[in-house]
Amino acid sequence: MVNPKYRNLIVGVNTKVPLFNGEYVQAANFDNAATTPSFISVANKIMRFLPWYSSVHRGFGYKSQISTKIYEEARDIILNFVNADSKTNTVIFVKNTTEAINKLSNLLYEEYNDGVILCTEMEHHSNDLPWRKYNIDYIMVDDYGRLSLDDLEQKLIRYNGKVKLVTLTGASNVTGYKNDIHEAAKITHKYNSKILVDGAQLVPHSVVNMKEDNSPEHIDYLAFSGHKMYAPFGTGVLIAPKEDFENIAPDYSGGGTVETVTQDYVKWTHTPEKDEAGSPNVLGAVALGIAIETLSLIGMKNIEVYERYLTDYTLKNLRNIPDIKLYYDAVNSDERISIISFNIKNIPHETTAKILSYEAGIAARNGCFCAHPYVQRLLHMTKEEVEDRIRTDSKKPGLVRISFGLYNTVEEVDRLVYILNKVVKNKQYYINKYEKIE
Amino acid sequence: MVNPKYRNLIVGVNTKVPLFNGEYVQAANFDNAATTPSFISVANKIMRFLPWYSSVHRGFGYKSQISTKIYEEARDIILNFVNADSKTNTVIFVKNTTEAINKLSNLLYEEYNDGVILCTEMEHHSNDLPWRKYNIDYIMVDDYGRLSLDDLEQKLIRYNGKVKLVTLTGASNVTGYKNDIHEAAKITHKYNSKILVDGAQLVPHSVVNMKEDNSPEHIDYLAFSGHKMYAPFGTGVLIAPKEDFENIAPDYSGGGTVETVTQDYVKWTHTPEKDEAGSPNVLGAVALGIAIETLSLIGMKNIEVYERYLTDYTLKNLRNIPDIKLYYDAVNSDERISIISFNIKNIPHETTAKILSYEAGIAARNGCFCAHPYVQRLLHMTKEEVEDRIRTDSKKPGLVRISFGLYNTVEEVDRLVYILNKVVKNKQYYINKYEKIE
Repeated sequence: MVNPKYRNLIVGVNTKVPLFNGEYVQAANFDNAATTPSFISVANKIMRFLPWYSSVHRGFGYKSQISTKIYEEARDIILNFVNADSKTNTVIFVKNTTEAINKLSNLLYEEYNDGVILCTEMEHHSNDLPWRKYNIDYIMVDDYGRLSLDDLEQKLIRYNGKVKLVTLTGASNVTGYKNDIHEAAKITHKYNSKILVDGAQLVPHSVVNMKEDNSPEHIDYLAFSGHKMYAPFGTGVLIAPKEDFENIAPDYSGGGTVETVTQDYVKWTHTPEKDEAGSPNVLGAVALGIAIETLSLIGMKNIEVYERYLTDYTLKNLRNIPDIKLYYDAVNSDERISIISFNIKNIPHETTAKILSYEAGIAARNGCFCAHPYVQRLLHMTKEEVEDRIRTDSKKPGLVRISFGLYNTVEEVDRLVYILNKVVKNKQYYINKYEKIE
Repeated sequence: MVNPKYRNLIVGVNTKVPLFNGEYVQAANFDNAATTPSFISVANKIMRFLPWYSSVHRGFGYKSQISTKIYEEARDIILNFVNADSKTNTVIFVKNTTEAINKLSNLLYEEYNDGVILCTEMEHHSNDLPWRKYNIDYIMVDDYGRLSLDDLEQKLIRYNGKVKLVTLTGASNVTGYKNDIHEAAKITHKYNSKILVDGAQLVPHSVVNMKEDNSPEHIDYLAFSGHKMYAPFGTGVLIAPKEDFENIAPDYSGGGTVETVTQDYVKWTHTPEKDEAGSPNVLGAVALGIAIETLSLIGMKNIEVYERYLTDYTLKNLRNIPDIKLYYDAVNSDERISIISFNIKNIPHETTAKILSYEAGIAARNGCFCAHPYVQRLLHMTKEEVEDRIRTDSKKPGLVRISFGLYNTVEEVDRLVYILNKVVKNKQYYINKYEKIE
């Protein structure tokens, strides 16, 4: 099951990092939900392409033509990867998923601002805050952190045609819980609304299929980031129907967005150029294109299967460690991507993250993972407790998160389990040692 | 004067490209005003850093700490490069200058929207269109395309305290004309307004000094792009006083921009994090930092001197070719950066650009360079002519532009002069050969 070949595809997996005691160990990166290292194929492609790098779109120089071709071809690779129809859909290159969602929110505002946006209680801030200038409501999650599709339908009925867009994450960046995006799409379309999937966490770990435009299960808008899928070169995408953005002003304007300009007249050009103001990040697009080709060669299904195995193996072992609370254990492994959040009883999440790094060379993440409302819900915090935390600016609530990439191994998980077992047996020792260290 | 060592600093200078006749020649890139190739130092640094690349700001993993450190240090390198006070000023990383200016326009909107923005008639669209949601007026340029500082002062007087911001380019991307930004700052501050300099063209080619915050010559806001200064990895910057952005909402919101969030409460964090929504392009920031260190090692003054020599040499030679019209010859070489725009009588600008590429392997740019109003002015087009062009959607007016980087050579210029001499002697032959080719 463990395929060591995957590991050989990644830059920096053999890097040694120092521990608190001065020894060096191979770094174990369990923070792939934040960002992943680069594929070697991506790094090599960047270096091979760099001598040909030049301005895109408006130059007759040979390198400009090569650069334009590779930049535009990246769009097709991306559309093909998620099975979007390239005749009707476009790829807008952005910096990251956050930019993609802000941009969509701005582009739709003139048409949708009198309507309602349905968000969910499990979103990353990046798929929540950008929608707050609209009338927004939140689809409920249950005690396990799982989205209620019943509540989605109830809210669509209650708002009686006023819901312009349903926006939800493909998979939670906290619990790893995967939403049934196609079922959500079916319900959404039944009430003549549209659906955006924040694919930042889902796309790097699962087969994602936007489906035919006329399918009830079609995903209307999809956003994701290259830096979470082994292409950390500053590029993400927004995939959207071309016609939605025609004849509307871009949210950022400037070079490349226009046909003609006088001091009192502007004729915008077509999407995607209109919506990519300024010189594009050509290398970022190239990087994302090659990362997708590499992921496709491995096969997203194979990645899913391997990461599920690793996640199951980890969950099974963590359950055997006393005083570890999982958020949420009840989520089946086929309902989640490779993210596990937990806490050790009586050890602050921040201290646990430091221990993992300084004692075992394991990079984890701790805190609220830019999803405060969801974490408050998972921790069963009352409104008063939350307000009290805000008022007193006291130590922030949170969890410890580990998140796997395709290159992580059982041996790394064993190292995690080993150190956690040591910690729970000597809590006070580790707390004293690390609580105050920055 | 020609320093061949500069050439060895650049990726891809020896690349051969095909001509129309099937032969290959060393590519000559005269389109550095659009984008530059990468420094070798930048490419090497990216590859050396890549094994350490990890999430920034919120991780205790060793690689996260390394990544955070290098990312934050890049801000100091940048502030130091333009002599900005790091105690009072901040660097916000963006994709490019266009994003920087759009962001500034959005951030200032609530405070400034009842005032006037003074732009100029020589701006790139990226420093014009983002300001059109304000009351905007344009400072005049003369027949040589030079900004009138008298008109700046007249307009500041006329608007009687209503001008909130004066925004102008450091150097024109069409004529290369350099504005006296410090004289403009003095005048602007005299009337209690602030000044933004679009440094996209100026910063890569000149010593730029923002000066002390309390100097009348201080530049309040400065924007520029890495990809025009040998760091084409998707990063640019906005430099601004920290206090200007405190306690105001960011224009893009999401991950990293907040302290605390509930469903009905948001507490924003501090700039620059607040204004860099989503995962940052760490590699882009690293690239820009190293590019600046390399530029500083060479010395911006040396670069200025060398590029001025190259520009003078080119101008002298172009003046001797019949039927070449320069825009504008009257601009002295110490008043311009290394950009020269021209047309050949009776040859469309697009055809000339094709000829340079397919006959000589020279990459130039043609068109209006995202500065339509300025080019219309340089071509002395009447309002009626412009409107007629828009109505009939006829062939676009424009120029041919060559723009040098520090690695271009006299030999490359000689190749340009040679082909232009051939073309003017056989105009109809070349027009017939290239007019229809895409």
